[in-house]
Amino acid sequence: MHIKASAPGKVILFGEHSVVYGKPAIAVAVKKYAHITIKERVDLQINLEIMGLGVLASLNLEDETISCKNNRMETGILKYVLKALKLIQDKGPTKGMDILLEIEMPVGAGLGSSAAVTVATIAAANKYYETDLKLDEIAKLAHQVELEVQGAASPIDTTLSTYGGALYLGRNTNRIEKLPLNWELPLVIGHTPRESNTAELIKKVHSKMEEYPSIIYHIFKSMEQITEEARDALIEKNEKKLAELMNINHGLLDALGVNTPVLSEMVYAARETGALGSKITGAGGGGSIIAYCPVKIEEVLRKLQKIENAFKAHITYEGVCTNIKE
Amino acid sequence: MHIKASAPGKVILFGEHSVVYGKPAIAVAVKKYAHITIKERVDLQINLEIMGLGVLASLNLEDETISCKNNRMETGILKYVLKALKLIQDKGPTKGMDILLEIEMPVGAGLGSSAAVTVATIAAANKYYETDLKLDEIAKLAHQVELEVQGAASPIDTTLSTYGGALYLGRNTNRIEKLPLNWELPLVIGHTPRESNTAELIKKVHSKMEEYPSIIYHIFKSMEQITEEARDALIEKNEKKLAELMNINHGLLDALGVNTPVLSEMVYAARETGALGSKITGAGGGGSIIAYCPVKIEEVLRKLQKIENAFKAHITYEGVCTNIKE
Repeated sequence: MHIKASAPGKVILFGEHSVVYGKPAIAVAVKKYAHITIKERVDLQINLEIMGLGVLASLNLEDETISCKNNRMETGILKYVLKALKLIQDKGPTKGMDILLEIEMPVGAGLGSSAAVTVATIAAANKYYETDLKLDEIAKLAHQVELEVQGAASPIDTTLSTYGGALYLGRNTNRIEKLPLNWELPLVIGHTPRESNTAELIKKVHSKMEEYPSIIYHIFKSMEQITEEARDALIEKNEKKLAELMNINHGLLDALGVNTPVLSEMVYAARETGALGSKITGAGGGGSIIAYCPVKIEEVLRKLQKIENAFKAHITYEGVCTNIKE
Repeated sequence: MHIKASAPGKVILFGEHSVVYGKPAIAVAVKKYAHITIKERVDLQINLEIMGLGVLASLNLEDETISCKNNRMETGILKYVLKALKLIQDKGPTKGMDILLEIEMPVGAGLGSSAAVTVATIAAANKYYETDLKLDEIAKLAHQVELEVQGAASPIDTTLSTYGGALYLGRNTNRIEKLPLNWELPLVIGHTPRESNTAELIKKVHSKMEEYPSIIYHIFKSMEQITEEARDALIEKNEKKLAELMNINHGLLDALGVNTPVLSEMVYAARETGALGSKITGAGGGGSIIAYCPVKIEEVLRKLQKIENAFKAHITYEGVCTNIKE
């Protein structure tokens, strides 16, 4: 028996960093997927393989021993797979399997790869172990996995990987609201290697906040207003407004100190080539930018590919999906 | 008889654009000068020459005819010379002269070239016509010249060209205060050709203000706080704080939409090469950036010169000075 589950990644459109200080944020699921394929085994061995890298970890369910091949960046993601399997096994029978993991988006780039892997793993294992979890239970369990692996996690990523679509996270994260969008939102994502990780960048902004509270306070207030107006712009499909808000938001992220020379080059190259708006997405410090391209998307894609890695990433309104081949 | 007067230009350190909305600003005089040399004539002819461009305008004081040779960018500055001579002649005798104008800083780059030319012209003519104006009268007359030529003008530029030093322009421009600095403030200025003029850029920001009032309101509030804290940092010679405030301010100017790809490249190249802080200075849209370089100033200079025009520009605590050779 083969079971394949695929879950989409996400991009943050508005609210990165300010969301840490209780401001609203907007993120959308994009058509870049994590795929998990489970092949049945008759023994109690679990083998984890990442496409192209071979078998990287093995877990024996009998004596609970784990063996890992190396500590490469890509293998950090295996923690999510193992934790997801552990939590779902608590709900059902234990049974060995061969797992093949294929990730379309760059890992650690703020594009929700860990949530996509986690949700896909749970969805596939849910069929394999016949634990019969509903979508909301999958989302909840996936969030729990992220919490246990990372120590802290917003439920946005796992919710988007589960359901797809666009989410608005309200002030002080007191509500997650599905935004009633129905258009494609054509994006190009440009991606550069990370110079700092998310935790370091959040700490850097926090230091600025402590040193210059009234300066940074107003930057976050401005970001809050941007997200609120962007919410309307997205629902109304007001392309010009959406693009302008992205450009303003980019400058504010630059002011917070999370921009880099290459991100800046990509943001401006995208605008010059025809993107209506462009900005850093995610924590910055290297990582990714998004360019909103209702026209000239191919030109912007080629331009950004000349600078660094880039790909198209339209919004998806479908979340995780599972296929079983007997 | 030869009379030579030299007046310094200026850079805005903090408060560009937000000053238009009543927020405070800080500017300093820099060691880049406009030089005016007056040579006595016995007739009533005034000839205006810009160094390297030959005689560009002639004015006959008898019949008040003016002939101009061309309308190149550099010659726009001649309006200030002619207006300054007109206003000072109202106060004293009329007498012909040959005027040679030499400008060290790029014209129309937000570096106070028109104020420096105006102040130098008035100071030289003041000696030539023996009108005996004191410094405060020179500054006042120079501001009047800028007002009449431009329609609107802050008194900051003409005050700095007259007195040198550092000025703080208070909220709602209700006071100009000389800042008690006594250190060199080593800067590199990078300069690119202007894509838009100041009036267009102010209009662009005004449109954003009208379209997104609450977003832009908070950006200006943040800029206001930056200028207030920068005032202390300058007086205390807190280099780290000064540099960080410059970097934050640059991001906010980017958010206002006055940054360009080349300015952004220069700002980041300066920081990467060793500048402690860097930002757009003046209206943006092309124009100039400043890089604050207590160390590695030569490296930053060479790096920026590879991208566009760049030069060192330390603060000067001396204003306009005049020399007479019989």
